[in-house]
Amino acid sequence: MKKIIIASTSTLYDGSYLDYLLPTLKKHFRGITQLLFIPFARPGGISHYDYTKKVSDTFAQIGIAVKGIHEFENPTEALQQAEGIFTGGGNTFLLVTQLYKTGIIETLEKVVKNGTPYLGTSAGSNICGLTMGTTNDMPIVYPPSFNTLAFVPFNINPHYLDPIEGSTHMGETRETRINEFHHFNSQPVLGLREGSWLEVKGDKIVLKGALPARLFKKNQEAVELETGADLSDLK
Amino acid sequence: MKKIIIASTSTLYDGSYLDYLLPTLKKHFRGITQLLFIPFARPGGISHYDYTKKVSDTFAQIGIAVKGIHEFENPTEALQQAEGIFTGGGNTFLLVTQLYKTGIIETLEKVVKNGTPYLGTSAGSNICGLTMGTTNDMPIVYPPSFNTLAFVPFNINPHYLDPIEGSTHMGETRETRINEFHHFNSQPVLGLREGSWLEVKGDKIVLKGALPARLFKKNQEAVELETGADLSDLK
Repeated sequence: MKKIIIASTSTLYDGSYLDYLLPTLKKHFRGITQLLFIPFARPGGISHYDYTKKVSDTFAQIGIAVKGIHEFENPTEALQQAEGIFTGGGNTFLLVTQLYKTGIIETLEKVVKNGTPYLGTSAGSNICGLTMGTTNDMPIVYPPSFNTLAFVPFNINPHYLDPIEGSTHMGETRETRINEFHHFNSQPVLGLREGSWLEVKGDKIVLKGALPARLFKKNQEAVELETGADLSDLK
Repeated sequence: MKKIIIASTSTLYDGSYLDYLLPTLKKHFRGITQLLFIPFARPGGISHYDYTKKVSDTFAQIGIAVKGIHEFENPTEALQQAEGIFTGGGNTFLLVTQLYKTGIIETLEKVVKNGTPYLGTSAGSNICGLTMGTTNDMPIVYPPSFNTLAFVPFNINPHYLDPIEGSTHMGETRETRINEFHHFNSQPVLGLREGSWLEVKGDKIVLKGALPARLFKKNQEAVELETGADLSDLK
């Protein structure tokens, strides 16, 4: 049975790394002594080592050790044997490129669909959808494909941002970008505001966190979903 | 001799389409009766027809007729015979995908490098750099490559946006994104603020418009360039 948390962000403006999620993660990863961390998205270009250290320091607070997938000689085996998996945020193009180039993407998909508890934040959440086509990131490297893990049958837009009132900037708003996506793609897109996450248990998908999420469907007006909303039938 | 204008945006906040650039375009396209328009970036998903109509209405003000490249049976020939070329803004992933799929990208590169006057705005400016790797757009379609026209030997970031003071949003700032780009790419990136443009005449590249631009080089602090700055040696 799938057991997945798909979080918009790792860090809230007034918080420290993952702190708002820790009570949830304590339950989500109950019984787990070691977490396998995928640091490929490298926020700000941070090294795999430094990124894993940061995550390790945080999970130490709830008694879970962390090992980076780059530390294993056989990453596929590491995924197969993992008690739990966390993919951190950063650049989605880089993350997806590395998932393909290291050849682990299929195994990652398989083990999580088979029940290994998973946490994604930001870029690590983007890849939980059908494609990475609704990432906000800059295309700093060219991935072999935009197809991602399809843990949910729609796309995620993390760090969903409402139009900024009074802005004089003429770049596209997030909503405009997602509407452009829907000219060429049919799957729904869920805009997850910072502090929101999805909890996936088997086929059940529920919106959690303090804020509503914004749901975009092709050829339909976007709608707001209140926290607690059941998205199990969304596709 | 190359004769190119690379503009950050088509439209200023308090302006109408291209109005701030029209006096410049009148000189840039002097003697031209018909402009070839490439509408592939389709902002907001607008059709090729509607986009070309909008551009046509604007250029009518300076006595230039506009024909969309989609109207030609042989787009390669249309490029070869064009008196001037304009690629409009929208989604860069879509634009680049179409340039490759229609097979015109090489001809476009060739004729502009050989002297056909060119105007790019936004996505149409992004493609003037070495790659589209510093676009701000959402990856709504998967292009065959991120390599672009290399009219200038560096990358462009149009609609360059300074960090928003007091913002509580945790998504990356533009500067953070460009720094991530430089972890994996070596070419300079020029952040063009809305209202700025580059004027390329042969090998001479000059910054124009009211605002300074922000120049990012790998492993260096970003610097501000005043309008009038000569970028001919930047690479």
